Amino acid sequence: MNKINCAVLGATGVVGQHFLKLLVAHPTFEVTAICASDARAGKKLSEMKEVVPGGIPQEFADLVFDPMDVDILASKNVQVIFSGLPADVARDVESNAAQNGIKVFSNAGSHRMDADVPILIPEINHYQIELLRIQQQKKQGFIACNANCTTTGLTMALLPFIDLNIKRMVVASYQAVSGAGYPGLPVMDISNNVIPYINNEEPKVCRETGKIFGHVENGTIIPREWEIFAHCIRVPTIVGHMISVHLELDGSTDYDTVAGLIRNYLPPAEVAGLPTAPEKPVLFTEQQDRPQPRYDVDLGTPERAKGMAVIIGRLEVNKNIVRFVTLSNNLVRGAAGGSVLNAELAYRLKLI
Amino acid sequence: MNKINCAVLGATGVVGQHFLKLLVAHPTFEVTAICASDARAGKKLSEMKEVVPGGIPQEFADLVFDPMDVDILASKNVQVIFSGLPADVARDVESNAAQNGIKVFSNAGSHRMDADVPILIPEINHYQIELLRIQQQKKQGFIACNANCTTTGLTMALLPFIDLNIKRMVVASYQAVSGAGYPGLPVMDISNNVIPYINNEEPKVCRETGKIFGHVENGTIIPREWEIFAHCIRVPTIVGHMISVHLELDGSTDYDTVAGLIRNYLPPAEVAGLPTAPEKPVLFTEQQDRPQPRYDVDLGTPERAKGMAVIIGRLEVNKNIVRFVTLSNNLVRGAAGGSVLNAELAYRLKLI
Amino acid sequence: MNKINCAVLGATGVVGQHFLKLLVAHPTFEVTAICASDARAGKKLSEMKEVVPGGIPQEFADLVFDPMDVDILASKNVQVIFSGLPADVARDVESNAAQNGIKVFSNAGSHRMDADVPILIPEINHYQIELLRIQQQKKQGFIACNANCTTTGLTMALLPFIDLNIKRMVVASYQAVSGAGYPGLPVMDISNNVIPYINNEEPKVCRETGKIFGHVENGTIIPREWEIFAHCIRVPTIVGHMISVHLELDGSTDYDTVAGLIRNYLPPAEVAGLPTAPEKPVLFTEQQDRPQPRYDVDLGTPERAKGMAVIIGRLEVNKNIVRFVTLSNNLVRGAAGGSVLNAELAYRLKLI
Amino acid sequence: MNKINCAVLGATGVVGQHFLKLLVAHPTFEVTAICASDARAGKKLSEMKEVVPGGIPQEFADLVFDPMDVDILASKNVQVIFSGLPADVARDVESNAAQNGIKVFSNAGSHRMDADVPILIPEINHYQIELLRIQQQKKQGFIACNANCTTTGLTMALLPFIDLNIKRMVVASYQAVSGAGYPGLPVMDISNNVIPYINNEEPKVCRETGKIFGHVENGTIIPREWEIFAHCIRVPTIVGHMISVHLELDGSTDYDTVAGLIRNYLPPAEVAGLPTAPEKPVLFTEQQDRPQPRYDVDLGTPERAKGMAVIIGRLEVNKNIVRFVTLSNNLVRGAAGGSVLNAELAYRLKLI
Repeated sequence: MNKINCAVLGATGVVGQHFLKLLVAHPTFEVTAICASDARAGKKLSEMKEVVPGGIPQEFADLVFDPMDVDILASKNVQVIFSGLPADVARDVESNAAQNGIKVFSNAGSHRMDADVPILIPEINHYQIELLRIQQQKKQGFIACNANCTTTGLTMALLPFIDLNIKRMVVASYQAVSGAGYPGLPVMDISNNVIPYINNEEPKVCRETGKIFGHVENGTIIPREWEIFAHCIRVPTIVGHMISVHLELDGSTDYDTVAGLIRNYLPPAEVAGLPTAPEKPVLFTEQQDRPQPRYDVDLGTPERAKGMAVIIGRLEVNKNIVRFVTLSNNLVRGAAGGSVLNAELAYRLKLI
Repeated sequence: MNKINCAVLGATGVVGQHFLKLLVAHPTFEVTAICASDARAGKKLSEMKEVVPGGIPQEFADLVFDPMDVDILASKNVQVIFSGLPADVARDVESNAAQNGIKVFSNAGSHRMDADVPILIPEINHYQIELLRIQQQKKQGFIACNANCTTTGLTMALLPFIDLNIKRMVVASYQAVSGAGYPGLPVMDISNNVIPYINNEEPKVCRETGKIFGHVENGTIIPREWEIFAHCIRVPTIVGHMISVHLELDGSTDYDTVAGLIRNYLPPAEVAGLPTAPEKPVLFTEQQDRPQPRYDVDLGTPERAKGMAVIIGRLEVNKNIVRFVTLSNNLVRGAAGGSVLNAELAYRLKLI
Repeated sequence: MNKINCAVLGATGVVGQHFLKLLVAHPTFEVTAICASDARAGKKLSEMKEVVPGGIPQEFADLVFDPMDVDILASKNVQVIFSGLPADVARDVESNAAQNGIKVFSNAGSHRMDADVPILIPEINHYQIELLRIQQQKKQGFIACNANCTTTGLTMALLPFIDLNIKRMVVASYQAVSGAGYPGLPVMDISNNVIPYINNEEPKVCRETGKIFGHVENGTIIPREWEIFAHCIRVPTIVGHMISVHLELDGSTDYDTVAGLIRNYLPPAEVAGLPTAPEKPVLFTEQQDRPQPRYDVDLGTPERAKGMAVIIGRLEVNKNIVRFVTLSNNLVRGAAGGSVLNAELAYRLKLI
Repeated sequence: MNKINCAVLGATGVVGQHFLKLLVAHPTFEVTAICASDARAGKKLSEMKEVVPGGIPQEFADLVFDPMDVDILASKNVQVIFSGLPADVARDVESNAAQNGIKVFSNAGSHRMDADVPILIPEINHYQIELLRIQQQKKQGFIACNANCTTTGLTMALLPFIDLNIKRMVVASYQAVSGAGYPGLPVMDISNNVIPYINNEEPKVCRETGKIFGHVENGTIIPREWEIFAHCIRVPTIVGHMISVHLELDGSTDYDTVAGLIRNYLPPAEVAGLPTAPEKPVLFTEQQDRPQPRYDVDLGTPERAKGMAVIIGRLEVNKNIVRFVTLSNNLVRGAAGGSVLNAELAYRLKLI
């Protein structure tokens, strides 16, 4: 089979280099172009600084940076873009690419709240891919976003008990520094410190969560209405976002019911078996001091899905209250891996 | 004036060494004896390992460890004990000392829930000191506890708006490793990690908070009834416990009202002017990314009260919901400093 | 082929759990028994605390701890022991096992300086395996040690230019905390700190280095005579020992010569192709800010040899002075992986 | 007495904010102006981000940033500048100020190797202040530099045994991240990592050390000739540069002699009693695991001299070899405090 040519945008950054790692020997997509800021054009990937271990895979070391120009990408027959660009740059570049027939899978926040752009988490809302067809009617290409990294961890963890009639959530996050990209936080700011504020993060978590669980009506997503209260807080870890979750239900339940929902949860058929899809997307631990980033940040089988599963621990249930802690890999499931899975889904559903 | 002889128990530990730091040149108390495990008896303080910077003050370097024996302490005319012992050791030692007429100010958890032992935070419940008189009638001496370090930070932060009819709290903590004492956590466990469990911490926060705000009836404390949901979580910082706090009120309020309550809060007359009492026990910041342990863990004036004030930031108010983040020094306000202030209060009220 | 039954001693520790990781699906050795302190006897591996990520491999999770008793191991037909025991325990257990015909491959320091025990680093001194035959004549089994983790990194790095007539070395190490095992250092001691002393480490580096490069004469090793000055210093990293190395030669050389020696170095035939042997044991970088633990601590091909190669960077040569920085994985090459490679060598040379 | 008006340049940075801390209530100098990049002009200090705890002292919070314009500073009667500017900006600004009669005390590296600019460490080379007179003849004002932070720690530690005929030094540093200023290193680069390269640092250490110990001849400094081999290496600590030092002497000595030299060392009369001068500039510890940044980075008496003393530990002497470890505060002695002390010396010697 001929693979599909793709470009990685922002290949000097943390998310971009994760795209490269995840696309090594990918069965469907072949990285044939890379872009970053125009100053890099003409340089080889191998001349760049590795910002994540393994972020400059041997296989791609000789790729040469192109300018961020859709015509050039088109001339190289690039059909798919994986975008790890910063939000301010991403907006126009991605729109332009979609207009020119390229399918864009983006980690940037710029288009997430656009009416016809879905925030895809295949296990949750594969049905929202319908919006991509609508986009394509307008502009040949399309933009599909993965969610913000914290939103991803939260929404994945809600997946097994989405039918429990959640009325209200109070969440507090323990977010790793890699969520801020590279160079991100100065060590002097965060070493041995906790920073109780991340610019624009709390509103993102609230509105993206509603959209992700929304339903499509007349080509638009009607967000699910939930009361969400979030504190998004930075802690001195490198990878892995933990979230303390407190849910209030409309109605009562018990521990065994909720534990059973998590244990028995299986991904929908649309997703099962995709190369980067975890066999069990939501894992469960009853070890009292887990999950922990040190041990649990790379969970997921098969090998290609490492970091794609989230894990729930410390489950407590008391009538209408469900409490737990969840952990997800903010760079894999919460960023590059999310978009790769979205592209695999789109390919299976023949949108690519 | 003659100072009152006191002993520091557990002087090889983190809390013990903080007692020593805080008692240098104290106007009322004079450290004349130190104890630790019996194996130390006969050794000089200066031979010990410093476990906190400045934890072996020059002034006390030549003190010699006594065995943990109340008769010996009595023979040295020790009237007051500051106990930084681990809970399992503290139980009997402290009971025994109180029985023998010594006034015990303890950071250990062993006696906190005893019916006639108050968990004192002078700004909140100086009136509970009444229990000490009751104890004294029974056994000459008494035991007064400071609260668990996380409880202390939470309850101090609630102080300005205690009349707001709080119905329910959802809290998640970001606790520094020094809360676990010395040697405490292995670096391999916590470096670049988050541990979502601290043994017995969540029940302590719930029941101590109720007792602290309780009222005294027939010589016993009737705890205040609140619904409290707590996740107590360890993060890789050294000093300073942050807490994300979500309050549900019975009734509505607004930002200006709550901010005003914090800004205008003043300590009660019983406490004002005590040597270790902070002039403003609850500080308020509207800087969007504060408080932070790196900058705010030693707040409090005058000099002797550094680390005795807590600080509230990120205040949000929406009808019946009040949300904020608070930070306190777990070793000073939440441990040694708390007990020193308790002793100062007891002295002012002529219980010593 | 039938695999050889082996036991891992100290399977609750950092080195023990690395043995387990490295022996998953090993072509020659099969872990059929595990031991730790006797208090563990009867418990399953899966009940233990994971102290390194992946340290309790699924494959071995159901193994049950045996008491540390050679008769029991013998009754289970254990022929080979991999010992990750602490030195004080290791001395007698290992002697006893060897006396009873078991081949012991040990990471403990207890027997390293015994006259008939080699400190094996196969690429350097595979010829010292001769001592094992001598031991076997005396007691059926034998003890073979891997070197101290810092010594290993240093001596591996010297390997390419061992013929340069090194006269004197001045070295300063940057050692990760995992070198102290588990629980090892309290986080309060080492977080944001540097500790310029590691008990007994500097003498070990000096005397082991001499023995490793020594020659065998009449069944004893005559150590190579070198002047070595070492500062062994702990820094707050988890894995990876870096060493600043300053060599004084007897005679002059130049950069290209030394760089060529490193680039062209190949392992001896005795070692090449062993399952855990790295194809290139000594790697070389001319990137000015490398090696770094974050990026380079797991170097080595093939997959099974990850962490078995060392890397040299910042090479400077000026007449008789050769200076560089080297990095090695203290848990793999410098501990468990070293002993696994030793066992593979012994098996190839028919000592097992 | 009227204090001397001074300006702090670079007051938004780590060194600038240390200047501010050290100049609170200074007996001689009064901060009456602050500058940073021109974009700050018109803003108040209190609007800036604190980059070191206490870096925006209450006393100066209302100061308003001036543009970096010598005429404006002159119009405000500023006589002395303390410069914490980055090197690229510092060159012209400082030259210009000196030409206009202002006395510049600079932490920047730009002018350190200028022929008529001394690198002053008062305890070592107060006599080099002679160069300031020469500069003044040419341009009314002058520039006096403090040394690079690593050089400062090394040269201070050499002070007690400068007469031992040191022939050669091999040093390896353990440098804290604050040495790189703010924002300095991204946390993703240095957390749990060691970086064996600091741009231009090793040449600085070599050439500055020679100049500092040089003698003045015909208005120029003739550097002392030493062989110095330095590895400058970044470790994940915030404050405090440790150095492993290996000295080769011309001639033999012994432990007691060298220890005696350190213990008995006293600062020269020219320096003793200056407000920021430490009573004992070089401290000595025989505790085997000290010095450590956690405990020893703020040494120095009186209070105003905290962080101005260096400390030597792990002393070993063997004939012509002297080895030790030393620690200094890179932000106080190695930066802002160094320049404040230089200004105090110049004031005492009537150059201001």
